[in-house]
Amino acid sequence: MRSLSGQAEALYEGTRALPIVSPHGHCDPAWFSTDAPFANPADLLVIPDHYVFRMLYSQGVPLEALGIGAKADPRVVFRLFAAHWHLFLGTPSRIWIEHVLRDTLGIATPLSPASADEIYDRIAQSLVRDDHRPRALFERFNIEVLATTDSALDDLSHHSLIRDGKWGGRVIPTFRPDGVLDPMDAEFGRNIEQLGRITGCDTATFEGYLEALRTRRAAFAALGATATDHAIEVVWTEWLSTPEALFQKLRQGVASAQEKRQFYGHMLIEMAQMSVEDGLVMQIHAGSRRNTNARVLQRFGRDKGADIPVAVDWVRGLEGLLNRVGNDPQLRIILFTLDESTYARELAPMAGHWPCLRIGPPWWFHDSPAGIARYFDSVVETAGYHNLAGFNDDTRAFLSIPARHDLWRRSVAVHLAGQVDRGAFGLEAARELARWLAVDLARDAYRLEV
Amino acid sequence: MRSLSGQAEALYEGTRALPIVSPHGHCDPAWFSTDAPFANPADLLVIPDHYVFRMLYSQGVPLEALGIGAKADPRVVFRLFAAHWHLFLGTPSRIWIEHVLRDTLGIATPLSPASADEIYDRIAQSLVRDDHRPRALFERFNIEVLATTDSALDDLSHHSLIRDGKWGGRVIPTFRPDGVLDPMDAEFGRNIEQLGRITGCDTATFEGYLEALRTRRAAFAALGATATDHAIEVVWTEWLSTPEALFQKLRQGVASAQEKRQFYGHMLIEMAQMSVEDGLVMQIHAGSRRNTNARVLQRFGRDKGADIPVAVDWVRGLEGLLNRVGNDPQLRIILFTLDESTYARELAPMAGHWPCLRIGPPWWFHDSPAGIARYFDSVVETAGYHNLAGFNDDTRAFLSIPARHDLWRRSVAVHLAGQVDRGAFGLEAARELARWLAVDLARDAYRLEV
Amino acid sequence: MRSLSGQAEALYEGTRALPIVSPHGHCDPAWFSTDAPFANPADLLVIPDHYVFRMLYSQGVPLEALGIGAKADPRVVFRLFAAHWHLFLGTPSRIWIEHVLRDTLGIATPLSPASADEIYDRIAQSLVRDDHRPRALFERFNIEVLATTDSALDDLSHHSLIRDGKWGGRVIPTFRPDGVLDPMDAEFGRNIEQLGRITGCDTATFEGYLEALRTRRAAFAALGATATDHAIEVVWTEWLSTPEALFQKLRQGVASAQEKRQFYGHMLIEMAQMSVEDGLVMQIHAGSRRNTNARVLQRFGRDKGADIPVAVDWVRGLEGLLNRVGNDPQLRIILFTLDESTYARELAPMAGHWPCLRIGPPWWFHDSPAGIARYFDSVVETAGYHNLAGFNDDTRAFLSIPARHDLWRRSVAVHLAGQVDRGAFGLEAARELARWLAVDLARDAYRLEV
Repeated sequence: MRSLSGQAEALYEGTRALPIVSPHGHCDPAWFSTDAPFANPADLLVIPDHYVFRMLYSQGVPLEALGIGAKADPRVVFRLFAAHWHLFLGTPSRIWIEHVLRDTLGIATPLSPASADEIYDRIAQSLVRDDHRPRALFERFNIEVLATTDSALDDLSHHSLIRDGKWGGRVIPTFRPDGVLDPMDAEFGRNIEQLGRITGCDTATFEGYLEALRTRRAAFAALGATATDHAIEVVWTEWLSTPEALFQKLRQGVASAQEKRQFYGHMLIEMAQMSVEDGLVMQIHAGSRRNTNARVLQRFGRDKGADIPVAVDWVRGLEGLLNRVGNDPQLRIILFTLDESTYARELAPMAGHWPCLRIGPPWWFHDSPAGIARYFDSVVETAGYHNLAGFNDDTRAFLSIPARHDLWRRSVAVHLAGQVDRGAFGLEAARELARWLAVDLARDAYRLEV
Repeated sequence: MRSLSGQAEALYEGTRALPIVSPHGHCDPAWFSTDAPFANPADLLVIPDHYVFRMLYSQGVPLEALGIGAKADPRVVFRLFAAHWHLFLGTPSRIWIEHVLRDTLGIATPLSPASADEIYDRIAQSLVRDDHRPRALFERFNIEVLATTDSALDDLSHHSLIRDGKWGGRVIPTFRPDGVLDPMDAEFGRNIEQLGRITGCDTATFEGYLEALRTRRAAFAALGATATDHAIEVVWTEWLSTPEALFQKLRQGVASAQEKRQFYGHMLIEMAQMSVEDGLVMQIHAGSRRNTNARVLQRFGRDKGADIPVAVDWVRGLEGLLNRVGNDPQLRIILFTLDESTYARELAPMAGHWPCLRIGPPWWFHDSPAGIARYFDSVVETAGYHNLAGFNDDTRAFLSIPARHDLWRRSVAVHLAGQVDRGAFGLEAARELARWLAVDLARDAYRLEV
Repeated sequence: MRSLSGQAEALYEGTRALPIVSPHGHCDPAWFSTDAPFANPADLLVIPDHYVFRMLYSQGVPLEALGIGAKADPRVVFRLFAAHWHLFLGTPSRIWIEHVLRDTLGIATPLSPASADEIYDRIAQSLVRDDHRPRALFERFNIEVLATTDSALDDLSHHSLIRDGKWGGRVIPTFRPDGVLDPMDAEFGRNIEQLGRITGCDTATFEGYLEALRTRRAAFAALGATATDHAIEVVWTEWLSTPEALFQKLRQGVASAQEKRQFYGHMLIEMAQMSVEDGLVMQIHAGSRRNTNARVLQRFGRDKGADIPVAVDWVRGLEGLLNRVGNDPQLRIILFTLDESTYARELAPMAGHWPCLRIGPPWWFHDSPAGIARYFDSVVETAGYHNLAGFNDDTRAFLSIPARHDLWRRSVAVHLAGQVDRGAFGLEAARELARWLAVDLARDAYRLEV
């Protein structure tokens, strides 16, 4: 847990009991539709967490030994994790996991190689209890709303079950259409066909394809979605005069790599235009080069810790989109970067000008005490606070959600106490900003007000 | 106002009463030649300040409502500004404007939506008083010298009037020839012709064009100019063996984009060579991509908050220039960046080697408490302090000049107190450096000693 | 000397007496094979130190006046240095030299223009004493191991003499084959021929060339080398299917610049594969653009302060190498950058995934209090501490070695005390990490355990 003192402590206290607004993350909606208990400590804390297993892999632990791409005794996996617990000194993973063990699971014994079995047993005993099933935890965590991230081709059956059921938790989908927009995706052709089948639109024509996208957006919105999400390695947007022709080349498999990139750049603008129409907030997560380790991809699949950030040019990359729709007061776009040099250089000046832009919180590797400090240091003086989008936990580790929001709120308090100390503004303004940064800005940026 | 404590306070006290040296900015020389009163609070504090109106625009306020590109009641504009005052929390604009209201205009009431009318009235009452006319404020601000920035085609009539008049204030021009050097400028051809008319040189030939530039530089110098200023988005310099031929292609309108870039790169070297001859200090402001919002440019014109920084490669970009004249002890070039990643990586090592180079102060978005802290953190260990160029206020908001120098001096004091605290050097050295950073380095870098 | 307080002081005290492990630097092995006294204070402290003379050159002091490329009275050189001592305020050079004068040479008088002669005399008197000869200082400095950096074509005679002699100091070579791997080197062709002569291999064939490289690596390893070192401006690695053909084009002098770059990219992968075989740790120092000042290069030669960093793309640049050998548990590669924006964006995520990668310490311009603080701030949260390679002094200034390690250990203590203060971990963990960062991580990363 991040320790605080004086004014920071007081500012934090003013936010700690506020509800959790989680507008972007990767929880599985099935957890909440079925409310089945979590399986075991390794499946809960180690195997699905790429922050954890990538670090062990970096120090020579085979992924198979962690139950990834292979069967493994969960207790043995947990012991192996505990044996390498020192690797996490100084990382947010350690802070989050300590928070989960102590505050969520009530285990006072510190994790160590020696305590691995005891802690494994205590977690396992908790997981079978009703008060540790997903819905009970959701309520105990005081989650006001939780957005998942769902493929454009997802049938949203779990979201429908939640919506139609008696449970009152607000779990909403997010429209993530990369697979049907980005021709670099190996499955693009098949995805387009499936999109046609799902929607009943004729995706053999560009107009039908657009109509299918509109149909799916509406289906997501009907289940509570307020946002879309888009991933792109090299930011590029460009309005094509004849996208129909290129769409047909893509369907015939005769488009060049450059044309594929242009098409995706065009489709991001189409998405922005649809956002103007239907009000869905557009998220763009840029600059992650995916699957850089070919052997790991081939053997273990995606999301195995080998996605590495690259430098991003937001200014030239977004010009096509912004110059077409960026002045529209209905549009809202939230930008996420892993290239921190763009915070002060590009994103803060852009968000401090364009009415449609908000800067997303520190993402992935930078959702951490020093990362958050660098973020505020870089963006606030140019963009102010009201062009920020509050916090995302962005996690697939459900138990870590309170830990991540808590770390954010503590780090916000440290930042704001520093501002008060430097004379930037007074304590009253800081108290209000602390609450805005904890919940209101996220509600506002994502149009989540009930 | 930035609050200080202990040693920082003492270091600041040693500099606060020093005169203001303002070697680069965008004040209008007509203010000082005519000494007419400022019009009204909105025209003084809101309408000309792109830091202010871009932030309001980013939160959905139409520029027309702020009296930009449209008529608006200044009191209504001021109310609208006050209604959005919370947007500026954490920004230097808020610090500057608070300083202006309190220290320059003597208004103790804090700005808020409720106090907008009262403050508007009090400012308006001040502006009609003789002691709030430009020359009186110039003297009260204790400005030793103020440089404006003037087109190469400017007739400098206001500067002549100041020079020939009885008033003793030192207001000097700066030679800004972008429009007659950069063929990417849409007016380039017409500008060259006008340059010929103004100077009586035959700018239909390359030699006549160079002679015209020399003539204009001399005219600026005769009115006190000690510097030139050059803007470039992508830094590139390259010595051409036959610039005459390319010049003729440009005049005939048949040069490619690449050739235009090469020509501007050549002309920057010509400027450096003329600087060796006439001693004018060369400023290069690089990496701002201008007018990225086409609709705002078309509707409202330039300088409306849509200039956004991009990444810069100073090393390869300046090689042509430096390898031609960079070892000349007569040459002085001051470099300004908006890409802070270049401070430690490129500018500090370059300024720590080349005799001609100085690093300009934090520019534009980074003229702020955290921006200044990052600047010192990034440059000093490699370049030392004596390769820095002191401070620029770089403002078109005349009233904010003391506020900006004050914020710089406070931030310098915080930095130096930190150095003393860390044991980098003692208090005596810090006191001397504080004075150098406040005034001496600017005087020295810009050759402003009287 | 960097001043410390409270917990930082205590953490530093736990490391100050530890031996010095110096796995990468540029000392001359002849110093230790001959044990001849150092010549004079200027030859010791000024003339060979590019950190020092580049700063004087940047402020108008001709290199000739410093005895570079010209004869100069060492006393006059030392006076000139002292006369410009104020230029070094805020730089690590000042901290190092103050440390050398006070702690190594026992001179309490502060350096100043007035004390230059006195200090010159006192140093000169020390240098003729036996206890100031290289081996005596090596022992007094408590150096456990010192690695030099040696051309692949070096006969290693001084290393052999040290190895075969009675003196017990551990001085080891490092294999630096740039000149025989990089076809951009003007001497590449001659170097290949000489490589053939030295090894008795037929370097007219690609297989013979590879065999010659293996032979030389073995010769270095036999004299204690544990590492290789590679410099590259623009990181690029690429496995060629027919390197033999390109090798012959290179020998015939008909390869393009692009092909030369490809060949070097291929050879770095060959080096990595040889490292898998022979266990030598691979160091890559990237992103320094060498000799950017053509006149200085021509007049004074290499390493004269005009090497300037440029932006680096580690992710795409290393993909060829990593996807061929990066998952091999035998491979160890240490990466050094001068582009600090790559620490958090690229190097920490890469080192936090690939088993072969470690992040080298802050290099060159960034081996300084603020540089070290930025380094820890940027890398630890993603890579942890165990993916770091400890410290390098990387110096050709032998006397500064203790100063540099001392500054590192103080800066480590400041960082760790901050972590304890923020609640990242407890004091016991910090104490252990302090020792790891001082010596163990370097021993481990470079396989220097005895």
